[in-house]
Amino acid sequence: MAKQKKQPRPKAETPKGFRDYFGAEVTERQEMLRQIAEVYDRYGFDPLETSAVETVEALGKFLPDVDRPNAGVFAFQEDGGSDDGTWLALRYDMTAPLARVAAQFRNDLPNPYRRYTMGPVWRNEKPGPGRFRQFYQCDADTVGAASVAADAEICAMLADTLEAVGIPRGDYIVRVNNRKVLNGVLEVAGLSGDDKEHERGIVLRAIDKLDKFGPDGVRLLLGEGRMDESGDFTKGAGLRAEQVEAIFQFLNARATASDDIAGRFKAIAEDDDRVNVVSSVGQVLDFERENGDDGFGTSSLVSAVTLRNLELAVAGSVEGTEGVNELRQIADLLAAQGYGPDRIVIDPSVVRGLGYYTGPVYEAELTFEITDEKGRPRQFGSVAGGGRYDDLVKRFTGQEVPATGVSIGVDRLLAALRAKGRIHGTRQGPVIVTVMDRDRMADYQAMASDLRAAGIRAEVYLGNPKNFGNQLKYADKRESPVAVIQGSDEKDRGVVQLKDLILGAKLAQDATLEEWKSQPAQTEVSRADLVQEVRAMMERHG
Amino acid sequence: MAKQKKQPRPKAETPKGFRDYFGAEVTERQEMLRQIAEVYDRYGFDPLETSAVETVEALGKFLPDVDRPNAGVFAFQEDGGSDDGTWLALRYDMTAPLARVAAQFRNDLPNPYRRYTMGPVWRNEKPGPGRFRQFYQCDADTVGAASVAADAEICAMLADTLEAVGIPRGDYIVRVNNRKVLNGVLEVAGLSGDDKEHERGIVLRAIDKLDKFGPDGVRLLLGEGRMDESGDFTKGAGLRAEQVEAIFQFLNARATASDDIAGRFKAIAEDDDRVNVVSSVGQVLDFERENGDDGFGTSSLVSAVTLRNLELAVAGSVEGTEGVNELRQIADLLAAQGYGPDRIVIDPSVVRGLGYYTGPVYEAELTFEITDEKGRPRQFGSVAGGGRYDDLVKRFTGQEVPATGVSIGVDRLLAALRAKGRIHGTRQGPVIVTVMDRDRMADYQAMASDLRAAGIRAEVYLGNPKNFGNQLKYADKRESPVAVIQGSDEKDRGVVQLKDLILGAKLAQDATLEEWKSQPAQTEVSRADLVQEVRAMMERHG
Repeated sequence: MAKQKKQPRPKAETPKGFRDYFGAEVTERQEMLRQIAEVYDRYGFDPLETSAVETVEALGKFLPDVDRPNAGVFAFQEDGGSDDGTWLALRYDMTAPLARVAAQFRNDLPNPYRRYTMGPVWRNEKPGPGRFRQFYQCDADTVGAASVAADAEICAMLADTLEAVGIPRGDYIVRVNNRKVLNGVLEVAGLSGDDKEHERGIVLRAIDKLDKFGPDGVRLLLGEGRMDESGDFTKGAGLRAEQVEAIFQFLNARATASDDIAGRFKAIAEDDDRVNVVSSVGQVLDFERENGDDGFGTSSLVSAVTLRNLELAVAGSVEGTEGVNELRQIADLLAAQGYGPDRIVIDPSVVRGLGYYTGPVYEAELTFEITDEKGRPRQFGSVAGGGRYDDLVKRFTGQEVPATGVSIGVDRLLAALRAKGRIHGTRQGPVIVTVMDRDRMADYQAMASDLRAAGIRAEVYLGNPKNFGNQLKYADKRESPVAVIQGSDEKDRGVVQLKDLILGAKLAQDATLEEWKSQPAQTEVSRADLVQEVRAMMERHG
Repeated sequence: MAKQKKQPRPKAETPKGFRDYFGAEVTERQEMLRQIAEVYDRYGFDPLETSAVETVEALGKFLPDVDRPNAGVFAFQEDGGSDDGTWLALRYDMTAPLARVAAQFRNDLPNPYRRYTMGPVWRNEKPGPGRFRQFYQCDADTVGAASVAADAEICAMLADTLEAVGIPRGDYIVRVNNRKVLNGVLEVAGLSGDDKEHERGIVLRAIDKLDKFGPDGVRLLLGEGRMDESGDFTKGAGLRAEQVEAIFQFLNARATASDDIAGRFKAIAEDDDRVNVVSSVGQVLDFERENGDDGFGTSSLVSAVTLRNLELAVAGSVEGTEGVNELRQIADLLAAQGYGPDRIVIDPSVVRGLGYYTGPVYEAELTFEITDEKGRPRQFGSVAGGGRYDDLVKRFTGQEVPATGVSIGVDRLLAALRAKGRIHGTRQGPVIVTVMDRDRMADYQAMASDLRAAGIRAEVYLGNPKNFGNQLKYADKRESPVAVIQGSDEKDRGVVQLKDLILGAKLAQDATLEEWKSQPAQTEVSRADLVQEVRAMMERHG
C-alpha cells in the first residue's frame, strides 16, 4: 500500500497586499475615526454602516476611475461557485453603497439624507510600497441637496476635521474646482465632441499632474508627449498651440496673495461689461466692511480675481460659466463664514480621478514636507477628496438625485501625522505581576485585580514562570512601567518588591554608578500599599 | 439596424443575509465595542487588527464546527478567476487569523501574546431570521500560556465585561467545563475508539441540548432518537442503557446551592480514599477562613461537590481526571478572587461546538427572559464563548502552542440589551436652521456654525427650501429638538424664532388647548442670544 502523504503545512502569511495592525496602530486609528465622527456628527450627519459585501450589480462591477481603469473589485459567487449564484463583491468605496442605500430606502430616509460612515474598503489591484488592498475611508455625504451650499459646507467641514485630528492651520489646504468649469475649458479648446473622449482623458490627467510635473511637463503632455527620467515616454494629447493656450489660460487663473490683487481687482471693477462680477465682488466687500475688514480683504479678492480669470477662460461656454458661478457661490459662502485662502482656495488644477463627478470637486492636501523612503523631501499630498455626483442614485431609480460628499483616507492621514511626529505609535504597557511561586497564582491575580479596580492596566505573567529572567524580558517587551515581585519571603513579611522598569531602562542606557545607587529602580513596599505605590511610580514618569 | 437594448436598472438591494445599520444601531455598537475594549485593555491585552481577507490555506478552508458542518466561507481567487491566482477568503472568525499572526510573527511578539480584536466576520451559510452572514465579534486570547490560570482569568474578565456593558450580576452566568472531562466521560461510556466518532458527535450535540430539550429529550437522543413537535425525527446515538447512565452521571454532576451541600461535602471529607479532593476542598476552606468566611461558604462547596461528582463520573479515565483537576484549579482561582456561582459555575453541559477545543471551555449566557417573535417568553441564551485550543498554531509551525480565548457576539449582546430596554436606539437629532430666504444661506450657515462651536449638533436645511412645511417635516424625521427660523422681518429686527419641536410633538399628542396657550412651543429671541437660548430649550427636556 502507498504511504499516506503528509499534508504540507500552510504558510503563515498575510495575503499579498494586505497587512496586520498592532497595538497603537489600531488604537490611534480608532481615535482618529472617533475625532472625525465627532465633527461629522456635530454637522448633523448620521452614522450608517453598510455591509462589506454588495451585489456586483449594485456596485457597477468596476471603479469608474479615470486614473486607474483596471482597478478591480474582489468578486465571488454567493454559493461558492455553482452557476446560478448571485455575484457578490467587497465594496471598493463608500459612495456606491450609499447610492444603493439612498435608492433602497428612499421612502424612509429623511430628504436630504446626510450620513457619515467609516470602515475598510477593498481594491483588487496590484499592491505597491505603502499601497494596500484594504484601507480605511471615512466619508460624509449629503444626498438630495442640489444647492452648492451643500458643497461649501463639506469643504468647511473638511477643514474643521483636519484641524480636529491634529493638522494645524497652514499645514493643509482644501482646494476647490468644478467639473463644469473643466468641461467649459475643454469646450473652448474644441475638445467637447463624443469623438474627443480619448484626448479629454489625457488632458484631465495632465492637468491633475500640474503639481508633480510643473507647467512645462503639462505642456508636453498636452502636445506630443513627455519622456520621464527613466526614459519612459507618455504619449500626449496632440493639441494645437491655441488649444494648449486655452488650457493654460485656465490653469493660470488661480490668483495668489502675492499677485497685484488690488490692481487686478480695480481693472475688473472698472470694466462696465462685467456687472455680474462687480456685483458679486461688491457683495463680498460689503460683507467685509460690515465685519470690520478694511474693505480690501485679500482673501475675498484673491477668490474674486481667480473667479474672474476663470470666467474669461471659459467665455462662450454655457456650462463653464455656470460652473464659475457655482464656484463663486461657494467662495462667497465660505468667505462669509471666515474660511479664507489659508484654509480653502479655488484651484483650477483640481481634477479628481473619478468619472462620476458632475459639479464642484474638492481635495484636501497636506502642505508640509516629509522625507520619503529615499531621504528626499517631498510634499505629503492629498489625504481627502470628494465632489458632487448627481447621477449615482439615478442608476437605480431613474430619478436624478443630487448628491455631494467627501472621503478621508484615514490611513494616509495617520501616516502623515506619524511622519510629522504628532502621534507616537506607543501605548502604556500593563503592570506585570511576576510569578515567583506557581502555587500562589491566586495571590498574584488578586494583586492584578486590585490594580485594575483602581484603573491601572495590569496582568499576571501567564507564561512558564520557571525562568524569572523571561518574565522580566516579557515585561520589557510589553513596555511595562512596573513589575511587581513577591517571593515567599516577601509574602511572609506582607510586602512586595516594585521594579521601576522605565527608570531601569534609562539607567541601563546612560547612568553612572553613582546614579544607580542614588536612584534605586527597585523598592519594597507594603502589600497593602500596592496600588498607591505603583501609581506613584508611574506618575513619576508622567 | 437592431435597436440598441437599454441596460436594465440594477436592483437597489442588500445581498441576501446582509443588512445595513443606521444611526443609533451604529453608535450603540461602537459604544459597546469601546466598553469591551476598555476591560480587555485593563486586563493587559493589546489590540490587533488583521485584514478581513486571509488565504484559504491559512484559514483551513472551512469551519471545524461540530454543529454546523456545512458552514462555509466566502472564497475567491486573487486575480479574479485565472487558474493560478491564490485562493483568498473572508475570515469566518477571529481565532484562525490570530493563529496565523502568532505563527507569522512568533519571533517578534511577546510570549505569551495577549491580544484583543474586534470587527466583522463572514459566514457563507443560509441566512435565517435574525441570523446574518456578517456579524461582529470581539475576542481576547492568550497565546503561549499553558497554565489554566489563563483560562480562569478569561472567565473572570468575561464576567467583568458583561457587567461593564450593562448586564447586571444575576442576569448572566459564565459556565465552565473541560473537554478533557467530556472525553473522559466518553471513554468511561465506551465511546473512545476511532470508529466511534459518529456516536461521539451525536452525544456531544445531545449534551449541548440539555437546556433546550431537558433530560428526557437528551435521553432519547442518546438512545434511539427523538421526534420533535413538527414530526421530524433525529436519529439517536443508539447507546446501551449503561452507557446512557454513564453520561447522565456526568450530566447530573452539577451541584446547586439548593442541594444538601453541607451534607454531601461531609460525606466527601470523611472518605479517606479521597485525599486529593479533601486536600483541595480543605485549601478552599482555609482560604475562606482566612478571608473571614465562616468556613462553609456555599460558593466553594457547590464547586467542590460538583467537582467531586465529576471525578466519580470519569473515574478510571486518565484524561477525564486531569480535566477535573484543571477545573478544580480554575474554581479555586476564581473563588479566591471572589467570583462565586452567582457569576461563574462549573457546568458539565457546556460543550461548545467548535472541534478544536482541547481543554477548558466556557460560555456566557444571559439568564433573563425575553419575548420572542411569537410572543413566547424564552431565555436569551449564549452571547459569548471560548476555550482552550492548543493545536491551532501548530498547524503552521509544527510546534505546540497552548492558547485560550473568548469571543463575544456583540450583535447578540446588543439585541439582548435592546430587548431589555437597557439601550434605546435613539440619538439626539441636530438643531435645524431653516431657510426662509435662499439668498441668505451665509447667514443661516453662520447660525449653524455658532451652535456647533458651542458643541451643539446643528445643520442648515439643504433641500429645496421652497416648501417650508417640508423643512419642518425634515426636522421631525431627524428627531430635531429645535428649529431655528429667520425670515426677512426677523432679520431686520435682529431676532430669530425658535421652535421647540420636542414640546411641539408632546403638545400635538396629548395637550389641552389651555396647555397649548401656556406653553408656547415657539419663541422669539435675539440673534445674539441664539446659542444660549437653544441650549436652554434643549436642557428643558433633559
